[in-house]
Amino acid sequence: MCQLLGMNCNVPTDIVFSFTGFAMRGGHTDTHHDGWGIAFFEGAGVRHFVDHQAAIASPVAELIKRYPIKSRNVIAHIRKATQGQVALENCHPFVRELWGRYWVFAHNGDLKEFNPVLTGSYRPVGCTDSELAFCYLLQELHARFGDAPPALPQLHAALAELLPGIAAHGTFNMMLSSGEALFAHCSTSLHYLVRQHPFPTAKLSDEDLSVDFSQVTTPQDRVAVIVTQPLTTNEQWTAFAPGELKLFVDGMVQDTPVA
Amino acid sequence: MCQLLGMNCNVPTDIVFSFTGFAMRGGHTDTHHDGWGIAFFEGAGVRHFVDHQAAIASPVAELIKRYPIKSRNVIAHIRKATQGQVALENCHPFVRELWGRYWVFAHNGDLKEFNPVLTGSYRPVGCTDSELAFCYLLQELHARFGDAPPALPQLHAALAELLPGIAAHGTFNMMLSSGEALFAHCSTSLHYLVRQHPFPTAKLSDEDLSVDFSQVTTPQDRVAVIVTQPLTTNEQWTAFAPGELKLFVDGMVQDTPVA
Repeated sequence: MCQLLGMNCNVPTDIVFSFTGFAMRGGHTDTHHDGWGIAFFEGAGVRHFVDHQAAIASPVAELIKRYPIKSRNVIAHIRKATQGQVALENCHPFVRELWGRYWVFAHNGDLKEFNPVLTGSYRPVGCTDSELAFCYLLQELHARFGDAPPALPQLHAALAELLPGIAAHGTFNMMLSSGEALFAHCSTSLHYLVRQHPFPTAKLSDEDLSVDFSQVTTPQDRVAVIVTQPLTTNEQWTAFAPGELKLFVDGMVQDTPVA
Repeated sequence: MCQLLGMNCNVPTDIVFSFTGFAMRGGHTDTHHDGWGIAFFEGAGVRHFVDHQAAIASPVAELIKRYPIKSRNVIAHIRKATQGQVALENCHPFVRELWGRYWVFAHNGDLKEFNPVLTGSYRPVGCTDSELAFCYLLQELHARFGDAPPALPQLHAALAELLPGIAAHGTFNMMLSSGEALFAHCSTSLHYLVRQHPFPTAKLSDEDLSVDFSQVTTPQDRVAVIVTQPLTTNEQWTAFAPGELKLFVDGMVQDTPVA
């Protein structure tokens, strides 16, 4: 199994604090040492870093911890291989283009007997069930909406219909973003919190590190952090229910779409 | 205008020496300060780094200069914006997937009145003529060969037919790779050399730095370096002819395809 970390904010925010704790699980406080990756949206562009080394040993992860890249949507992943060998092409998150936007996807879990028919517009490069699910998802979204990208509520509703069909094949905790919002789906384990004014001092559970967010924010800032297991010991994290899909926009949870 | 750097080798090789000289042109020895990028193939996977900061000021470029990522195919680019604003989504190289492989593309030059019809399978995310040309190229390759990827000679012949139609719109120095080989097309300026046994001591033209390659190679290693302007002062670089397309495989130039 793997671990996921996502961030969705109303203003570009750096993820150095959360990533520092998260990366410790990549071979130090936990056993997810078969690669890692992180993608930051910056406008319509994406900075995409993947490494098949353990996150604690990776010079690229060191860079991320030191270089405060500011982004409104971030998805990160540390991998413990279950399907697919340890190789760069199997590291999450994966990136593809649809409707002239980049889409970023990461998955935690295992899918069994999942053999969707791919029409050829998106094909996996590696050999993970995760990348296969991502390709299938983009293909189905394109099939539904054609060349005209849907509004967010319609996209939310389409994913609410599509994801259970994939999740039925096993465990499908996942995060998906095209830079304007972040979708998170839980099969077994996902937690979130929203940091906003008055900002707390947060203390990492995986490393002896605290940050007083009130010193580095403005009262208008709002940041949602979504993660497999809570990252801090002194904040209130909310667990997703199994089967739950949540949409985060501007650091806030949106209502569930009505069919 | 921009500058291009490519490397194609028979064994995974690090590009630290060449990139160090090349990156100096990103704002120091030359005026290409509107972003930069580099993509390394590692097996079927790609490490893709882009930054809208000048290469000489970028912490990510610092990492590349210090971290010897080994790859058989690398494409790098430093940008001086001519079309499209300075933004991450306009930084080369661009990456897309076709036939279950990643394709990496970078372009130096300007295309005028270039308005190809895109069918929707590949759409630009940014607003450069370069990304548009890349999307068009992949679309046309897919149209020619369908879902079955061609062998390298057929791909070479197809590109030799397709590229003049794009280059007719202006200046189209470009590099393209899917990880097994590297294509380079020259409109106005491109040079290459092949480093092989007996390896020389090479001296950068943009920084006071020399490397004795005989100390860091085996007699079987072969490395082709392709670049807009020669990077070293004491090696023999070969200029491409205008309109020339070259295919590099395992560090060697291949013959031109026969129609």
